[in-house]
Amino acid sequence: MSKTIAILTGGGDCPGLNAVIRGVVRSAVNKNGWRVLGIEDGFEGLVGEMRYRELTLDSVRGILPRGGTIIGTSNRGNPFSYPVEVNGKLELQDVSDSVIEAFRQTGAEVLIAVGGDGTLKIAHGLYEKGLPVVGVPKTIDNDLRATDVTFGYRTAVAIVTEALDRLHSTAESHHRVMVVEVMGRDAGWIALESGIAGSADAILIPEIPYSVERLCQAIDKRRQRGSRFSIVVVAEGATVVDGEKVLQKSAEENLGVERLGGIGHDVARQIGGCLDMETRVVTLGHLQRGGSPDAYDRILASRFGVKAVELIEQQKYGRMVSLRGQNVVDVELEKAISSQNLVDPAGELVQTAESLGIMVGR
Amino acid sequence: MSKTIAILTGGGDCPGLNAVIRGVVRSAVNKNGWRVLGIEDGFEGLVGEMRYRELTLDSVRGILPRGGTIIGTSNRGNPFSYPVEVNGKLELQDVSDSVIEAFRQTGAEVLIAVGGDGTLKIAHGLYEKGLPVVGVPKTIDNDLRATDVTFGYRTAVAIVTEALDRLHSTAESHHRVMVVEVMGRDAGWIALESGIAGSADAILIPEIPYSVERLCQAIDKRRQRGSRFSIVVVAEGATVVDGEKVLQKSAEENLGVERLGGIGHDVARQIGGCLDMETRVVTLGHLQRGGSPDAYDRILASRFGVKAVELIEQQKYGRMVSLRGQNVVDVELEKAISSQNLVDPAGELVQTAESLGIMVGR
Amino acid sequence: MSKTIAILTGGGDCPGLNAVIRGVVRSAVNKNGWRVLGIEDGFEGLVGEMRYRELTLDSVRGILPRGGTIIGTSNRGNPFSYPVEVNGKLELQDVSDSVIEAFRQTGAEVLIAVGGDGTLKIAHGLYEKGLPVVGVPKTIDNDLRATDVTFGYRTAVAIVTEALDRLHSTAESHHRVMVVEVMGRDAGWIALESGIAGSADAILIPEIPYSVERLCQAIDKRRQRGSRFSIVVVAEGATVVDGEKVLQKSAEENLGVERLGGIGHDVARQIGGCLDMETRVVTLGHLQRGGSPDAYDRILASRFGVKAVELIEQQKYGRMVSLRGQNVVDVELEKAISSQNLVDPAGELVQTAESLGIMVGR
Amino acid sequence: MSKTIAILTGGGDCPGLNAVIRGVVRSAVNKNGWRVLGIEDGFEGLVGEMRYRELTLDSVRGILPRGGTIIGTSNRGNPFSYPVEVNGKLELQDVSDSVIEAFRQTGAEVLIAVGGDGTLKIAHGLYEKGLPVVGVPKTIDNDLRATDVTFGYRTAVAIVTEALDRLHSTAESHHRVMVVEVMGRDAGWIALESGIAGSADAILIPEIPYSVERLCQAIDKRRQRGSRFSIVVVAEGATVVDGEKVLQKSAEENLGVERLGGIGHDVARQIGGCLDMETRVVTLGHLQRGGSPDAYDRILASRFGVKAVELIEQQKYGRMVSLRGQNVVDVELEKAISSQNLVDPAGELVQTAESLGIMVGR
Repeated sequence: MSKTIAILTGGGDCPGLNAVIRGVVRSAVNKNGWRVLGIEDGFEGLVGEMRYRELTLDSVRGILPRGGTIIGTSNRGNPFSYPVEVNGKLELQDVSDSVIEAFRQTGAEVLIAVGGDGTLKIAHGLYEKGLPVVGVPKTIDNDLRATDVTFGYRTAVAIVTEALDRLHSTAESHHRVMVVEVMGRDAGWIALESGIAGSADAILIPEIPYSVERLCQAIDKRRQRGSRFSIVVVAEGATVVDGEKVLQKSAEENLGVERLGGIGHDVARQIGGCLDMETRVVTLGHLQRGGSPDAYDRILASRFGVKAVELIEQQKYGRMVSLRGQNVVDVELEKAISSQNLVDPAGELVQTAESLGIMVGR
Repeated sequence: MSKTIAILTGGGDCPGLNAVIRGVVRSAVNKNGWRVLGIEDGFEGLVGEMRYRELTLDSVRGILPRGGTIIGTSNRGNPFSYPVEVNGKLELQDVSDSVIEAFRQTGAEVLIAVGGDGTLKIAHGLYEKGLPVVGVPKTIDNDLRATDVTFGYRTAVAIVTEALDRLHSTAESHHRVMVVEVMGRDAGWIALESGIAGSADAILIPEIPYSVERLCQAIDKRRQRGSRFSIVVVAEGATVVDGEKVLQKSAEENLGVERLGGIGHDVARQIGGCLDMETRVVTLGHLQRGGSPDAYDRILASRFGVKAVELIEQQKYGRMVSLRGQNVVDVELEKAISSQNLVDPAGELVQTAESLGIMVGR
Repeated sequence: MSKTIAILTGGGDCPGLNAVIRGVVRSAVNKNGWRVLGIEDGFEGLVGEMRYRELTLDSVRGILPRGGTIIGTSNRGNPFSYPVEVNGKLELQDVSDSVIEAFRQTGAEVLIAVGGDGTLKIAHGLYEKGLPVVGVPKTIDNDLRATDVTFGYRTAVAIVTEALDRLHSTAESHHRVMVVEVMGRDAGWIALESGIAGSADAILIPEIPYSVERLCQAIDKRRQRGSRFSIVVVAEGATVVDGEKVLQKSAEENLGVERLGGIGHDVARQIGGCLDMETRVVTLGHLQRGGSPDAYDRILASRFGVKAVELIEQQKYGRMVSLRGQNVVDVELEKAISSQNLVDPAGELVQTAESLGIMVGR
Repeated sequence: MSKTIAILTGGGDCPGLNAVIRGVVRSAVNKNGWRVLGIEDGFEGLVGEMRYRELTLDSVRGILPRGGTIIGTSNRGNPFSYPVEVNGKLELQDVSDSVIEAFRQTGAEVLIAVGGDGTLKIAHGLYEKGLPVVGVPKTIDNDLRATDVTFGYRTAVAIVTEALDRLHSTAESHHRVMVVEVMGRDAGWIALESGIAGSADAILIPEIPYSVERLCQAIDKRRQRGSRFSIVVVAEGATVVDGEKVLQKSAEENLGVERLGGIGHDVARQIGGCLDMETRVVTLGHLQRGGSPDAYDRILASRFGVKAVELIEQQKYGRMVSLRGQNVVDVELEKAISSQNLVDPAGELVQTAESLGIMVGR
């Protein structure tokens, strides 16, 4: 039976988005003979002047190895809270009804929403208002509990690991402490896994507050043993243990001055405050999100795209694809968005890091 | 309590062996204060003139990102069937008792054996004769059922995928069929996963015999649609469907001539026999085994190394470390070596490939 | 003044072809406002049924980092010797007049021919018959004397070097001799440069015949010093010194049997004939030609494309772009195709390799 | 004739330093039978308590593909201006005589100094005081006029190009302006070459001041043509044209506040001041200096190391190795350190970039 489905990608860039799109299009067109519409720039393409185009087999040719998303993405455009100009002022309004109406006028019957927490919440809201929706989870930080892992994460870990490999030689040649700031506001997965893979000496993550004093001791101990350099990987959301003074930072705050740089620079100043060693900071930033997905992410994203089409075949709406062990399954969208996947401070991965001699927070 | 343990690596090279060794040494030395001996060249280092050396923290410095194994490996040296010269002729003898005796004279109490099927069988045999043994599974083909996945495999898939990316442009520019032969005698995992990740058009694996006629049809169909090139990934162990004539091959056999090249060349000749298209073969061979492990394999191998030491701490011998879902666990060595992990012809991964429009055998 | 120009790419695939095309199009369209036609599949697109399409700024978007050529290439289609069916038989005819006529009917005034020896000779022939032509040299083997270096070559060297890095670990772990066959029928540049960069122990090239005996001695000497592995890089066109018997090969010839594999296998058999060491062969083949050009080749190819358009601006036809030292210049097409760039057996590069302890032929 | 020579590496880390060291050791030991001493941490290892060790063939095994320098480096330790404690205060003193005396006591007769401007000036100073010295130029920025190019530079360009490839997908998916800050205080080579190779839209370098207004126009023009993203590569030393107000910056200066971030952030603020587009900054920093040298740099560095030993064989002291065209030659150390290699604003490379549609400063 012929059908028209639509897909959008929301939130931050992530390697594998194009592989999901290709998986959806190839599976829907080749296998089922459906039409696929690509909504442009996430939910932004659904409000105001609608923007979408048909995605044919030709339009997805050659996109598997490419980063980014051919239909664009955006962090804006929440239909439940959309800025509308009223009497010259911007007001946040619920425009979801008109969005659903507009969506239907495109001829599409189902929406596949690819995105993180925010995107999936909106998708769930639209589903509750009657729109058939299927979700595909995307989180480069690996912080969604509803799936064991999702695409983009392993590529990010690989990029950070490669950067750590590069920085090792410089740290060692100059006898420096190299502080590397990586993504992870709430969850320290990228820091933890790339820290293990890239042979870090200390890993600072949100889930396990660190003591500046102990960090300096760990670095100093290495120096005493003849290793005159150290690599510290710090997640954006890392925090110090309660009660510990972070001098530099409060000094700045007293001056009412904006903090210089991110947490990486904070950590460098803390080390500079207790050890007489050269310290350098590298902030990997957007490098972690861009570029070609690795083989694993291409496969997982393709599987997710194919599975999303299968859910539509089976008319299982309000659900999200997910990886459990070796299998791609589906879970309720509602549950999917309700809890975070954080690093377990007592878990095997942290213990492994510690057994390898890496300080992980504390 | 002080202790001396020994480690050896057996069988073919595999990215991550050094990471296991480093994980064992760091964990044993740093955390437990034990000594670690490295047996050289697999079981070969245990028979005849014993060869081993102490592995200190210094000896494993910087080896995490490096391919190969610093203690060497070998496919020879089975103590239960060792070639001994008797009256000028080689005879296979069981020298396991003297090997166990020699092992004990080194002062080592436990042996960590890192290897595949063959190595683990020997390890199990020695365990049954009273030697405390812990196994670490290694199979670049991913064909051991006792662990979800093991180190080296993902790196191999990544290498093949990168090669397919390269070959795409040449195939496309020249309108050629490119046949790429990859590892996999019994199991087609590498072909299947890298074929999906590298956008192959056909994947030929041992588990699903292929029909030459259908292969040619698939390629021809692409040509009729305007895609004048195709990429065929073939595992070493791929086979044609029963009863189908493989003309070239039998012709050669009739001539009593050794087959030219591997299966990749067979497939190229088969395609050449039914389609008028230029065909080229690339055999990836040893490229798939060497070089730096990717981030995933470095982490998994490190976890395996650390876990092996934990098993020794707990005196759980005759067991093998293993990955189950997200967790590193341990399983009985005996069970571990008894069954193979093959691609399920009706499984989700094969179906995904087919939904993407890839021919997978048949 | 408005103008229409055409471009074609001929001969084997080579990283950087797309960068030349993009350089030509961007420069011609943006800077001069000209139209650019892309002839498809080299000279094949000019004979018989003409095949070409307009190349706009849009059609070259995103192609800089991609291997291959978006307009296809071919080794066939020589207008001076084209197979034409006469009375049921194929006859080679000179169809160059009708090709020039057909070319003019497209509205294009000038042809940019990108290719190697063969392509440039045809281009020169057409120029002599009155067609305004500009040449861009392409040779992945680096064997054209008329330019210091051309695009694609450095990428090939980089690919081989990366492969050698991978193979080192396997060779070392298994104590093997690894024979790596690389491109280079007439010139040994790829083998020589990648051999130096990838730390080979012996490099066999066409310009310096090698002695099997000395090769075995070199490998054996390493073994005696404790390095139980060796890496031998061999160019396709490598030859043994006069008078030396190559036993295996002649044995086969006596049997009237086709040679097994390429020169890599010959060398492996030669080593197997004089040393008791495991030997393995890797043939890099098409991997060396495909995939994304490295930064250097992207820049050089872009410069060549821009320069080709400049030559047309200046109406300097019958000439070829070329790199001399740091500068892109132009040379007479006639001279360009007359002599080869071979490795100088007494040159600095060979001497450097020898000073590093590498055996280079002999 | 037996001889002892010494080598040191000074200044910032640079891919290829280990390849120079290996080239020197292999050539000196294998070919000449000399001893080689490695001075640790640049000139720091020569003052105060001398630190050096013998470099054997074993100590340089496997270092060719590795970044950094196995003998360490430092930006400190100028013997002509060394901080000495006098009456509790640090005073800069000329300790060069005692350094030369100490150097001779090691038994070494000649010093090979590998480094940039600063290191080579010190080396020349010691030469003028009678120490036999040979220089090897190192400048990742490519700003030494005395050599066409030196090792490390191409690897840096490759790293930046790869980062630009990654960032393209994110910029495009989010319709952002991505500002990428790269090395280059005085010379814009890295920005210029990687900008061309990585398909930048604007390149800002020290040699060609840029106008903020024109930069915004260039980005806006792209947007009007449908390209809703831009990539701007900016060298550390880029400057705006005279008289142009850089509002944000002066505002901060009025507040007496330290500038936030580097020039990348300045440029982002400038664009934010004139265009309503999302802007993001990535600062590549130390990533550009570390890690494995590419094939080209490994070869060039090896050639430089071998040539340095040749100069010693010929007793040509006070000279520096250098690349001229395709040849490694030697030049007077005195001249080598006197002038910089800057980008020619009217040169072919800048013109090529402009013909490709890239704004280069102005």
